[in-house]
Amino acid sequence: MRPETTRVIGLDPGLRRTGYGVIETDGYRHRYQASGQICPPQGPIPQRLGELFRQLSEVLETYVPDCAAVEASFIAANAGTALKLGQARGALISACVVREVTVFEYSPRSMKQAITGRGGATKEQVQFMVQRLLGLAESPQADEADALGLALCHAHSRLLTPQECTT
Amino acid sequence: MRPETTRVIGLDPGLRRTGYGVIETDGYRHRYQASGQICPPQGPIPQRLGELFRQLSEVLETYVPDCAAVEASFIAANAGTALKLGQARGALISACVVREVTVFEYSPRSMKQAITGRGGATKEQVQFMVQRLLGLAESPQADEADALGLALCHAHSRLLTPQECTT
Repeated sequence: MRPETTRVIGLDPGLRRTGYGVIETDGYRHRYQASGQICPPQGPIPQRLGELFRQLSEVLETYVPDCAAVEASFIAANAGTALKLGQARGALISACVVREVTVFEYSPRSMKQAITGRGGATKEQVQFMVQRLLGLAESPQADEADALGLALCHAHSRLLTPQECTT
Repeated sequence: MRPETTRVIGLDPGLRRTGYGVIETDGYRHRYQASGQICPPQGPIPQRLGELFRQLSEVLETYVPDCAAVEASFIAANAGTALKLGQARGALISACVVREVTVFEYSPRSMKQAITGRGGATKEQVQFMVQRLLGLAESPQADEADALGLALCHAHSRLLTPQECTT
């Protein structure tokens, strides 16, 4: 029996730059589908939030993922930074939910642990392992590698017990 | 010549409860259109964000405001609280922007100053003045009064120089 495949989009949220990466997985084998960055143009924050929502919606319409693996926010020392990051996450997560894409979240540490075996891995190690796990010809750009890493982390955790995003 | 009228929606954002209030104004005279609360059911945060987006989108489709006056966030002492409030704002603001509703923001203090003449006014004073300014038969519920107060604050500031939301 052929195992069921799932499409997962990984998201590394940011108001200036959000990385995304889409993979197809049966929990054991993973195939790269697409990756890129959403970079809203400079301007008032509401416009940027609207642009994040619009551009992610286009990506979701194109690749139709079943679920999203979003980077859990580190708690910023600065409440102002947390508010801005929260706004970007709110725009991105609501874009997923209104298209019935179930949202899960993973800390950067869990993602690194799942991909490289070490929670404290460097960006380069994540890029290297993502390239290797997905058999890519080139090393993905850092934000895309993180997003693909989150999607792979979710693909691995499907064999365990995934947690829906609760924060 | 009849002055041009504008529809303004005021928004008092919260993940558990978001107040909204719609008025029509020519800058001098203001007419109540609608007000209410969006209360996403208990559940995972992504679902609640999706529900805020969906329900606000319905309100925007029904009343077709030209612009939104959103309560500027106080900087929470706790970064975790700021992140949650930011997420709610991100969902609500992107719902406005994708429907081409221009977003402005006002601090609670500016709103109270505009409505009651005193930045430190109590909730009851805001409710009383909103009821009076809009000629309502009953005092609106506190969240709705704040939302209507924000819409009125924007209506007044149209005579001055309104600032688009930049945070």
